[in-house]
Amino acid sequence: MQEFDLTRRLAAEALGTALLVATVVGSGIMAETLTKDVALALLGNTLPTGAILVVLITILGPVSGAHFNPAVSLVFALRRELAPRNALAYVAAQVAGGIAGTIIAHAMFALPLIDASLKMRTGGAQWFAEGIAAFGLLTTILGGIRFNRVAVPWLVGLYITAAYWFTASTSFANPAVAIARSMTNTFSGIRPADLPGFIAAELCGAVIALIFITWLLRGAGEAAAAKEARP
Amino acid sequence: MQEFDLTRRLAAEALGTALLVATVVGSGIMAETLTKDVALALLGNTLPTGAILVVLITILGPVSGAHFNPAVSLVFALRRELAPRNALAYVAAQVAGGIAGTIIAHAMFALPLIDASLKMRTGGAQWFAEGIAAFGLLTTILGGIRFNRVAVPWLVGLYITAAYWFTASTSFANPAVAIARSMTNTFSGIRPADLPGFIAAELCGAVIALIFITWLLRGAGEAAAAKEARP
Amino acid sequence: MQEFDLTRRLAAEALGTALLVATVVGSGIMAETLTKDVALALLGNTLPTGAILVVLITILGPVSGAHFNPAVSLVFALRRELAPRNALAYVAAQVAGGIAGTIIAHAMFALPLIDASLKMRTGGAQWFAEGIAAFGLLTTILGGIRFNRVAVPWLVGLYITAAYWFTASTSFANPAVAIARSMTNTFSGIRPADLPGFIAAELCGAVIALIFITWLLRGAGEAAAAKEARP
Amino acid sequence: MQEFDLTRRLAAEALGTALLVATVVGSGIMAETLTKDVALALLGNTLPTGAILVVLITILGPVSGAHFNPAVSLVFALRRELAPRNALAYVAAQVAGGIAGTIIAHAMFALPLIDASLKMRTGGAQWFAEGIAAFGLLTTILGGIRFNRVAVPWLVGLYITAAYWFTASTSFANPAVAIARSMTNTFSGIRPADLPGFIAAELCGAVIALIFITWLLRGAGEAAAAKEARP
Repeated sequence: MQEFDLTRRLAAEALGTALLVATVVGSGIMAETLTKDVALALLGNTLPTGAILVVLITILGPVSGAHFNPAVSLVFALRRELAPRNALAYVAAQVAGGIAGTIIAHAMFALPLIDASLKMRTGGAQWFAEGIAAFGLLTTILGGIRFNRVAVPWLVGLYITAAYWFTASTSFANPAVAIARSMTNTFSGIRPADLPGFIAAELCGAVIALIFITWLLRGAGEAAAAKEARP
Repeated sequence: MQEFDLTRRLAAEALGTALLVATVVGSGIMAETLTKDVALALLGNTLPTGAILVVLITILGPVSGAHFNPAVSLVFALRRELAPRNALAYVAAQVAGGIAGTIIAHAMFALPLIDASLKMRTGGAQWFAEGIAAFGLLTTILGGIRFNRVAVPWLVGLYITAAYWFTASTSFANPAVAIARSMTNTFSGIRPADLPGFIAAELCGAVIALIFITWLLRGAGEAAAAKEARP
Repeated sequence: MQEFDLTRRLAAEALGTALLVATVVGSGIMAETLTKDVALALLGNTLPTGAILVVLITILGPVSGAHFNPAVSLVFALRRELAPRNALAYVAAQVAGGIAGTIIAHAMFALPLIDASLKMRTGGAQWFAEGIAAFGLLTTILGGIRFNRVAVPWLVGLYITAAYWFTASTSFANPAVAIARSMTNTFSGIRPADLPGFIAAELCGAVIALIFITWLLRGAGEAAAAKEARP
Repeated sequence: MQEFDLTRRLAAEALGTALLVATVVGSGIMAETLTKDVALALLGNTLPTGAILVVLITILGPVSGAHFNPAVSLVFALRRELAPRNALAYVAAQVAGGIAGTIIAHAMFALPLIDASLKMRTGGAQWFAEGIAAFGLLTTILGGIRFNRVAVPWLVGLYITAAYWFTASTSFANPAVAIARSMTNTFSGIRPADLPGFIAAELCGAVIALIFITWLLRGAGEAAAAKEARP
């Protein structure tokens, strides 16, 4: 990961977030155009999102780490694996890429390029759901990195596939994607006014996961380190 | 696996069972809210369950073995790979985690936190189906551990994906999950009165799988051991 | 594979074919019970079948080769990788296991244990489709064994997932499974009178695949052998 | 790849493209026959296509590279990994194979073997979508080859699974497949008159991906080369 310069890493973060959002928004438009059954529309939104995550994390992970998500960059900054200045640059690239993704999806479906969402997503249950969604996502990433790094793209894709259905909020779990989704008045949208609650919940869930997983995996880490230290 | 202390192993069992049950119950609520087609609802219940199993077993397996299931802990106790005292602690963590999972799902969907199910699931055909479901699950786990340990998370996720559809009971195959599902009056619920029949059938199926697989794989085990013993 | 005695290999073939047929027939019953949309029913039949194939081939392949299919055993006999006498025993175990699978599925769903199918599947287009289905299956198996043996369970599961939809016959591609499916008057059934046409088409497709793949891969095999022979 | 002679490589390209098109066209026919819900039909078209791509690229990739796509062969010719003369032969094999695939699908479903499509797919938004589709496909392939070659069959299958839904054109992304699909008047068809716009957009998207990925991955390539060059 260190082999790539910051420009390329930011390009990878922007491209990845753009294609991720284009998939989320685009497949939502396709799905709600083709069917009146909302469960089927959610399925047509879920499978592409899970699939593209596996692809994007595999091909861009070696360049930038494939965060595509400010909550993930925050956690890596807290773990001191990403310098604070670079974390801010990552977040800017993710937000810009995400907005580009919405614009790309709208252009493909011949819709106005930007359109504020009217879909209300707010209230304690929704925020709790977003917190759980982000907790689960970071638990998946941190546990995966620890025990089966090569499987992380698959784990994230599968986790989001599940979380689209088991969380009441359909698991945004990503502040940059949430901002981008506030700019589409289609299936996957969220009212701009509802963003702060979602983003706060996501960051809380992510930090709680970091604390919990750090505790859970500490014992073995020390044991393994001690083992390696033996002559 | 031995590197982690019992507290962390029990935390992993509780967390894993909680997220598993939250997925089963939560996706069931989401699915039946969004569609009237029961096959589509079952699909919206199946894919998240299979997906989250791959994730949870991958990230928590190295900590606790990722049983999340008293029938699995029973089999490992019978194989003397888990001390009886620890097996009891595992089961307690699984049941507590499972109930927490139901509560989490209800909180996300703004439902009463606990609600006894009214869904009848009883009778000889259902019990036979549960026995087959648990037999298949343990056959999958024991065969997978023997021949392709790294694939076990995938095998379990895929097996449950199939078993949700091919068994008449939709394959609970897990006493802790069954108990947790008796506390939700939604898509995935089961009447508390029907628990004993399901649990008995699951334990029977699991033990029969242990006996059968032990016989099936014995020959080669001895041959392989003899091979290794050669100078 | 040679480590297991014939009894265990036949047990593995019977068990695998039984669970495969129980999945095909059982998920078909579940699907047509839950929905009136035939495409959705086929989806509810497809995903479990593909998933269980990955599981069964992974856990039983090292015991018996996991043929579960007389057309596959025929091809391995023609390749002289299975003695003719053993091939006949394999086929007998597969047919017996398949019939047991139908009975198990019926018992789980509280149906008469055996019931002749009334579903007509005949005519040149259907036979051509079955020939293509078996050609593709054997091409998948023989190519997979040659280039990525560990992926074969996945390749077969994915191939059948595709073939359920792209062949007009929904891809039986397996004489033992076809016989077992003639004994269920449910979604996945086939009239007993239509078996000979299906079985003949399947065996033809399998043998053509053997001939074609043997030609296709011959050049490189010799080149690779020559390479290895160099000092 | 160099081990196979050109005849076998062309046979692999033709066979792979034929089975790919047979899957696309055949599953489209099956899907629109079984349901009136267009989202469900697209799902019944998506899953088989994604699944067969994993299979075909795994088993034929070692023979010919498994392009099955003139846009892919063009990119490898531009990278000087395929001689211009061979690239032309590849394209011819792909187009011939694709047309054979349409004929095979029609024969299986007892339809006229060739039938010009009446489905209109044209206009700036559709062309932009096709450009994005091909850009994403080549980004997936080139990134996958660089960082996880063994995963490429999976990445392509997953990418197309996503792109069927997130691009407004349902992601043809392949001139040979587009030509073959102009000869079927079913779910997956495209009017012959609309081919030039689609093919031009696909080639543009592919070349832009080549330029972008070459830039993105250059830095690390040089760094890695320098590293290896150290004594």
